[in-house]
Amino acid sequence: MSQDVITVLFGDPFAVMNTIGLIAFALVGSSKAIREEFDVFGVVIVGLAMAFAGGVTRDLLVTRVPLALQSPIEIGLGLLGVGLAIGLSVVLSSPDTHPVTLVADAVGLAAFATTGAIVATEAGVSVFGVVAIATINAAGGGAVADVLLDRAPFILFEDFYASCAVLGGGAYVLAGAVGAAGGTAAVVCAVVTVASRLAAVTYGWNLPTVQELGLRRE
Amino acid sequence: MSQDVITVLFGDPFAVMNTIGLIAFALVGSSKAIREEFDVFGVVIVGLAMAFAGGVTRDLLVTRVPLALQSPIEIGLGLLGVGLAIGLSVVLSSPDTHPVTLVADAVGLAAFATTGAIVATEAGVSVFGVVAIATINAAGGGAVADVLLDRAPFILFEDFYASCAVLGGGAYVLAGAVGAAGGTAAVVCAVVTVASRLAAVTYGWNLPTVQELGLRRE
Amino acid sequence: MSQDVITVLFGDPFAVMNTIGLIAFALVGSSKAIREEFDVFGVVIVGLAMAFAGGVTRDLLVTRVPLALQSPIEIGLGLLGVGLAIGLSVVLSSPDTHPVTLVADAVGLAAFATTGAIVATEAGVSVFGVVAIATINAAGGGAVADVLLDRAPFILFEDFYASCAVLGGGAYVLAGAVGAAGGTAAVVCAVVTVASRLAAVTYGWNLPTVQELGLRRE
Repeated sequence: MSQDVITVLFGDPFAVMNTIGLIAFALVGSSKAIREEFDVFGVVIVGLAMAFAGGVTRDLLVTRVPLALQSPIEIGLGLLGVGLAIGLSVVLSSPDTHPVTLVADAVGLAAFATTGAIVATEAGVSVFGVVAIATINAAGGGAVADVLLDRAPFILFEDFYASCAVLGGGAYVLAGAVGAAGGTAAVVCAVVTVASRLAAVTYGWNLPTVQELGLRRE
Repeated sequence: MSQDVITVLFGDPFAVMNTIGLIAFALVGSSKAIREEFDVFGVVIVGLAMAFAGGVTRDLLVTRVPLALQSPIEIGLGLLGVGLAIGLSVVLSSPDTHPVTLVADAVGLAAFATTGAIVATEAGVSVFGVVAIATINAAGGGAVADVLLDRAPFILFEDFYASCAVLGGGAYVLAGAVGAAGGTAAVVCAVVTVASRLAAVTYGWNLPTVQELGLRRE
Repeated sequence: MSQDVITVLFGDPFAVMNTIGLIAFALVGSSKAIREEFDVFGVVIVGLAMAFAGGVTRDLLVTRVPLALQSPIEIGLGLLGVGLAIGLSVVLSSPDTHPVTLVADAVGLAAFATTGAIVATEAGVSVFGVVAIATINAAGGGAVADVLLDRAPFILFEDFYASCAVLGGGAYVLAGAVGAAGGTAAVVCAVVTVASRLAAVTYGWNLPTVQELGLRRE
C-alpha cells in the first residue's frame, strides 16, 4: 500500500492501531475480571484473552502464525493494560463501569476493527471477508472474555456493539473503493467505529427485533 | 477425482452440497434467533454463524483460508437462508419447531457432512480424520449457534444428531474403499446422514448411557 | 535438537509425552461425562475432545494440519483412554473424583505442557509464545471438556491448574536457555508441571484475588 500523508505523519496504521487496541482491551478485560473477584492469574488471563483473542482468530483465518506468538512486544503491551486495570482498581470504586473503561472499550473496538480490515485486505479476501474479519478482530476479544467470565457472548448482540465494527469495516471498504490510501481508509474505519459505538452507549441505541419490526404477530 | 455419472448429471458434488447446506443452516439458525427475540443484527449473525462455523472450522483444520471469506457467492447464499427464515416467521407461528425447519436442519447436516468428507479426502488426512472433519463440518454450526443462543452445545449429544454425521462420514469412507467414484460416495454420505437423522427425529432415537448399559450399578 | 541421554534412554520426548497425555486426558474427560450420565456417544466425544482439543489448537496456532487428523494411532490412544474410563466406572463408585483420575489429570497436564513447549520451540515462536502454547496445549482440553459438560471453563482459574502449565513452560524455556538438551528440558517441564499440580491439589493452593492482595478497598 502506498505511503500517504496519514502514514507519514503518524506511522504505520497497523502498528499504531494494534498498540492502542492491545492496551485498551487488556485494561477492559482485566477490569471485568477484578470486578468478578477472579484471582490474580485469572485477571491476567482474562485481560490477555480479551486483548489477543480477536487478533489470533484473525491470523488463523488468513492462515498465518499469530503475531501475538511471534513478537515479544505484543505481550508487553497486553501486560501494560493489565497493570493499568489493577492501578485503576485501586483508585476507582467500580472501574469496570467507569467512563474511562467504556471509552477504552470503544477505542479498542475501533482499533481492532481497523487492524482486521488492514490484514484482511492484504490477504486478498473478498469484500465480505474484509468486513467479517474486521468484525471478528474487533468483537472477538469481548466475546471470549464474556465466555471466560461465565456469561453468554451477548456482547455480540447487545448495545449495538459488533454492529459498530461492521459499519467501520464497511467504511474501510468504501474508502478503498473510492481511492483512499491505506492510512486514510484506516482513519475512516477507526473514526466510524468509535463514533458509532460512543453514540450507541450515550443514546442507548438498540436494533429492533423481527417481532418489533411488525413482521409477525406473537 | 474422476468424473462419474452423478457428477455429470448433477454437477460438482461439493458445490451442490455446499449451496444446499448454507441456505438450510442459515434458515435454521435465524429461525432459532427469531424465536429468542434477538434483534435483527443478532438474527443475521446467528444465521450466518450456523451456516459458516462448520465450514470455517473445516478449512482451518486443513489449513486453508476459509472459502466463506474468499467467495462473495457464499455470503449471498447465507443471507438468502436468513431471508427465508424471516419470511417463514411471518407465515408460521413457531417456525423453529415446524417440520420445514426440522427437515432443513437434517438436510443441512447431511449436506455439510458430505462437504466435510470431500474436503478432508482431498486434504489427504487419515480415515479417522475424514469422519472427524465430516462430523465437525456438519455439527459445528449447530453447536456454535447453541452457544450464541446461550445454551450448552447439547446438540452434540442429544437426539442422535452428530452421530448421524459420523454414520454418513463412515459411509463415505466405506464407499470410497469399495471403489465408488466421488459423486457416488457423496450421495451415499448425504443419504445415510439425512435418513438416519430423520429416523432419529421421527422415532425419538436415543443412545443409552453407560449406566443404562448395565455396566455399573448406581 | 541434538540427541541427549534422556532421548537415548526413553525415546523421542514428544512421542512419549503425547502417548501419555492422550490416554490420561481421554480417561479424565470420559469419567466426567459418565458421571454426568451422558450417552455413550457423548462419553466418547467428551473423552476425545479433552484428549485432542489442546493439541489441535496448538497445531492450528503454528499453522499445521492437526496431528490428530493425520495419524490413525492418535485416535486409537484416545479410544484406549475412553475404554479405561468405562472400565474404571464399573469398579469404582465415583471414578471422576477418585485419586486415580486426579493423578491422571495432573499427568496429562504435564505431558501436554511438554508437547506444547516442544512443538512451539520447533516452530520458532517467541519465549512468551512457547509458554503460551504449552499452557494452551495443557489446559485447552479441560476447558473444552468443561464447556461440553455445560460448565464455565473455570478449570482455567481454579485450583492452580493452568498456572502449573505456565510454570512448566517457563521451566522448559529456562532449561533451554541454560543449555539443556531437548530431552532434559522436556523432563524438567513435565516434572515441574506435575509436581506443582499435585502439590496444589494436596495442599489446596489458591492464588489471591486483587482484592485479597489489599490493593483495593471494597
